[in-house]
Amino acid sequence: MADSKAGLEDSAKNVGEEVGRVVEQAKELQDSAASFISKSSSDEQTLRHRALSLDSSIRRLRSLLRSLLSHNLIDPKLADKLQEELERARCIMVDGDAASFLSGNTEGGFLRMFLGPINVRASRKDVQLKVKEEYNSYRDRTALLFLLFPSILLILRSWIWNGCLPAFPVQLYQAWLLFLYTGLALRENILRVNGSDIRPWWIYHHYCAMVMALVSLTWEIKGQPNCAQKQRGVQLFLQWAMMQGVAMLLQNRYQRQRLYTRIALGKAKRMDVVWGETAGVDGQLLLLCPILFILQGFEAYVGLLLLRTALNGVVSEWQVFFCGILFVTMAVVNFANTVQTLIVKSRFKAKMKRSKSKQDLR
Amino acid sequence: MADSKAGLEDSAKNVGEEVGRVVEQAKELQDSAASFISKSSSDEQTLRHRALSLDSSIRRLRSLLRSLLSHNLIDPKLADKLQEELERARCIMVDGDAASFLSGNTEGGFLRMFLGPINVRASRKDVQLKVKEEYNSYRDRTALLFLLFPSILLILRSWIWNGCLPAFPVQLYQAWLLFLYTGLALRENILRVNGSDIRPWWIYHHYCAMVMALVSLTWEIKGQPNCAQKQRGVQLFLQWAMMQGVAMLLQNRYQRQRLYTRIALGKAKRMDVVWGETAGVDGQLLLLCPILFILQGFEAYVGLLLLRTALNGVVSEWQVFFCGILFVTMAVVNFANTVQTLIVKSRFKAKMKRSKSKQDLR
Repeated sequence: MADSKAGLEDSAKNVGEEVGRVVEQAKELQDSAASFISKSSSDEQTLRHRALSLDSSIRRLRSLLRSLLSHNLIDPKLADKLQEELERARCIMVDGDAASFLSGNTEGGFLRMFLGPINVRASRKDVQLKVKEEYNSYRDRTALLFLLFPSILLILRSWIWNGCLPAFPVQLYQAWLLFLYTGLALRENILRVNGSDIRPWWIYHHYCAMVMALVSLTWEIKGQPNCAQKQRGVQLFLQWAMMQGVAMLLQNRYQRQRLYTRIALGKAKRMDVVWGETAGVDGQLLLLCPILFILQGFEAYVGLLLLRTALNGVVSEWQVFFCGILFVTMAVVNFANTVQTLIVKSRFKAKMKRSKSKQDLR
Repeated sequence: MADSKAGLEDSAKNVGEEVGRVVEQAKELQDSAASFISKSSSDEQTLRHRALSLDSSIRRLRSLLRSLLSHNLIDPKLADKLQEELERARCIMVDGDAASFLSGNTEGGFLRMFLGPINVRASRKDVQLKVKEEYNSYRDRTALLFLLFPSILLILRSWIWNGCLPAFPVQLYQAWLLFLYTGLALRENILRVNGSDIRPWWIYHHYCAMVMALVSLTWEIKGQPNCAQKQRGVQLFLQWAMMQGVAMLLQNRYQRQRLYTRIALGKAKRMDVVWGETAGVDGQLLLLCPILFILQGFEAYVGLLLLRTALNGVVSEWQVFFCGILFVTMAVVNFANTVQTLIVKSRFKAKMKRSKSKQDLR
């Protein structure tokens, strides 16, 4: 105690000095911070200008090569080689550290609506990949719940609830769906801002799913009598959701393997990223595709059943009609998008094979 | 045409050269970008270390001064002066450019739940203020809708709908509320990450409101017969929402004036920011407070009415009971928080007056 008192007396002597030093340090820190911020934002500006002008040069040269080819002013082989070089330059820029200085996708209306005009772009490429990795693991977790939640509801329905679902657990499930789709839509928009090439439809699809979950919340879940007939729509929806869970799990495995390939190749040799995209996952695609098509067929079937119920006048609520229309629309556009993706992939593969066999010939 | 063909022939000669230059430029850009990123992140690290160590020095000296005072080892006047100097150093750091290097509030679970682990902190002070300004204008817009939406519903109810609200517009309103509160909660969490000192309760309050909007969506809106009795709860809720709109508009004006004072003072003299916080807005507080208290009283009244309805067994749905409990809880905690804020404000003002009269005496 005496010791600490003596210590205090010592500090009393130079406390004024110390306070003065701290104030001085604060001023110095403020100056360094201000100069750091202004310096780094002007450097960033310069790099952005360079990236943009390089991007436009690449575009210009690409179209120049095309018109030279069409006027027979260049040897096709040379043109091919130059196109490849340009592609390489673009890869260096897009997959490298300069990517963060390219404008990329701007924040869409959806993000602004929920978050306001806040910047969600990660400036470093490895952080962007981490965001994508986290998104995938989030999808994994939700896919499990997507499988479990409706399964449990359906099991309890036949075991405990005597074929008649009570309203509360179903509404809980619908609220969870609404939360889930909102989260997915927000995350996907963030991924887009960070340069992901996610197809716009998959995001719109989640907007539709959000609206559907919202509408289904306002939809009264009727009980006895004639429970089985009245709850036919809910039951079908739950079965469809279970299948969706399985498809999501498979899709996630596929997507993740693609990302790992990208990261691995990106580390080994940045430029090869694009070529490696479909490596080693063809087998999974063979399994995934039929499941996706069955799912889409089932989706359309559920939608048509709902529409029939609404038009027959068995259930008069507008929600039935609305959800029916939404289901059919989603099924059709989903199908169109899946087919389109497959076509793009097979074309890409054919092109790769051709250029590979050309190289072998040489 | 001949001209452009001649131009093309010219370009054909040096297209190879140009492509080579572009590839070279891409490599250079990649190198500069990589070195810029590594340089600026190491500079940031240094500044962060300096800010943190300065922060802990200030804390240490503050508690030292307190213990010196309690042991009578320092002249009280000197201690006061030194405390003020420390406060000044803290202000330089917290309100200046170094603020972005202090750790601040970390992203809460709510943001992570919806957005994943993305960084939403703006690195520059002026951007942070812009985010706050945009949040306020968002609140302005929503406050108007908050006033208009329920007013229109109530007017149409008595003019067109013969005292009986149809389900769809009310559900639309509830869905809008859910969206609105989710957006507000997300934006407020973002503000917190950016160093705003928003009270945690106001954010929790929006979580409660989100849950309430969600629950009210599952609540069936019954029509004839006895519409007036069955819809008593909805009607009260809409009236309360109208009052809430008025209160929000007033609150926004008050908050905005405070922010403008802060920005103006911050530009004139950064250190005075804290002292100017309550300047020129006392009159509005006198108007705002009674309205807030009436609103909270009405909130509790609506909650108690709902509880009575639920306990009397007139309406047996769990939603009635749940919303009643939530309303009463929100009213009570709102009241407690408003009173606490007022006490803090009046204490702060008394302290300011005392230090001002002391300065006048000297």
